[in-house]
Amino acid sequence: MTGSPVADLDVIEHALAEAVALIPEPAAPVATAARYALSGGGKRLRPALVLAAYRACGGTDLDAASGIAASVEVIHTYSLVHDDLPSMDNDDLRRGRPTAHRVFGSAAATLAGASLIPLAFRMLERSAGRLRLPEVRRMELSLELARGAGGSGMVGGQWLDLAAETTDSTLEALEEIHARKTGALIAAAAAMGGIAANTDEHRVAALREYGRRTGLAFQIIDDVLDEVAQTDQLGKTAGRDRTLGKATFPGLLGVEEARRRAKAELDAGLDALSAASIPDDELAALARFAVDRDR
Amino acid sequence: MTGSPVADLDVIEHALAEAVALIPEPAAPVATAARYALSGGGKRLRPALVLAAYRACGGTDLDAASGIAASVEVIHTYSLVHDDLPSMDNDDLRRGRPTAHRVFGSAAATLAGASLIPLAFRMLERSAGRLRLPEVRRMELSLELARGAGGSGMVGGQWLDLAAETTDSTLEALEEIHARKTGALIAAAAAMGGIAANTDEHRVAALREYGRRTGLAFQIIDDVLDEVAQTDQLGKTAGRDRTLGKATFPGLLGVEEARRRAKAELDAGLDALSAASIPDDELAALARFAVDRDR
Repeated sequence: MTGSPVADLDVIEHALAEAVALIPEPAAPVATAARYALSGGGKRLRPALVLAAYRACGGTDLDAASGIAASVEVIHTYSLVHDDLPSMDNDDLRRGRPTAHRVFGSAAATLAGASLIPLAFRMLERSAGRLRLPEVRRMELSLELARGAGGSGMVGGQWLDLAAETTDSTLEALEEIHARKTGALIAAAAAMGGIAANTDEHRVAALREYGRRTGLAFQIIDDVLDEVAQTDQLGKTAGRDRTLGKATFPGLLGVEEARRRAKAELDAGLDALSAASIPDDELAALARFAVDRDR
Repeated sequence: MTGSPVADLDVIEHALAEAVALIPEPAAPVATAARYALSGGGKRLRPALVLAAYRACGGTDLDAASGIAASVEVIHTYSLVHDDLPSMDNDDLRRGRPTAHRVFGSAAATLAGASLIPLAFRMLERSAGRLRLPEVRRMELSLELARGAGGSGMVGGQWLDLAAETTDSTLEALEEIHARKTGALIAAAAAMGGIAANTDEHRVAALREYGRRTGLAFQIIDDVLDEVAQTDQLGKTAGRDRTLGKATFPGLLGVEEARRRAKAELDAGLDALSAASIPDDELAALARFAVDRDR
């Protein structure tokens, strides 16, 4: 078993295929758009984190837990579909393909994105049932996903991100945006893995902290990639943030200092794990994957 | 205790206020837009149906069940916010006030609408916990809400409704649209009330059938109102369906035949209740309220 996200990719893709199978009516454009968005590949970092955290806390039934991993990726996918909409970032490319609204139109993409949210909660509920978790842990899973996705988490960050296009941004404001937009769901993913393994609150908190810091490191590197990479390497339009006038970490700190900052966040996240005596080999490998992918 | 939806309005508004209190950050436009949409009043028919079905199946802890009622109204509210978007119906008025996107912009309205979906599942989970329902019933509640809201239900209907603007519609196609767009969530509301009372599957199925038919009756009358009422009575732009070239029940059947059809659906829904020996006084009053409001 290696620590790479690829280790669980088959399980993750299988769970996502189960989610896709729950989408009704392949003929209707909304269902087709939802399937299109879910089958776009991507790094699957969030579900890999769920499963790595689950294993690190002693979880052994990977198949049963995979629906929880899928639920997080389904929420992430909905956010990408909505993020790309003309009323949001108005982007043409995602994961190397035309964005959902470019293929199916804005109405179908908006509806398809929203339809993924109940689907995620359905996957979560099924998986929690298969894991035979105590009632209180199941409620925590729902709460964790709802908080990570909702107005205090990802959606709140999406808004701050849009609003920041029209204002000068400080480093603190930028961190706040990314703590929510990217960090909240990644933190929820790590915490959900621990809850799925029915581990104690102390460890769940450590996983959340690890996820929060990994998410920030990931986003800093995303900004760096946007600054230095070419569109064909990235699978989405390069230099987009600068075109939109968005503040970025390399914009505020310079590329090298941004990279150092990402590394510092990564280390702090791993420190949180060791303080809670959580085996960190797999989780460390995933976090490094998030940070090292531009080398 | 009367059968009017007004009987439970205090409990419903209180549960919705609890939902609103879970929305973070009153200052951010997305949270403000979500609060704005939830506080728009409306008939609160769906949560009233949840609570009436709960009582009809012997449920007695109305406060605990009210979060389930609120979860359905929160989902309904998100659908209204998205339905009104420029990429959808592009409507200016809702519940007598400017639509959310007219006040806060399309991006904030799209995000606020989506943020209501995890909020609904959070309310549902809290309420199911307070009711101390068996695990299998809690899964059924989640499944019912996810199905009612998702691609096979409401979202699927929203799409069919949009698509129908550009094609000639038959009565069968129109029924299919409304069975999904309006019927699915109302059927889920009635069924969820029964599940919350931990009643048997046979009764839950009867409640679902009652909800499905009541939803169709409700939608037929909505079409009739759109045809005959003035904007100031309706709280939304009158004659909108015809302007959009949408097929409607009065358009296909005439106003009087459409009203007869609504009445027939109502009666069939109540028959389903009596066949399952579910006391129908409150539920009948709610269904009649849905159908008689244009007299």
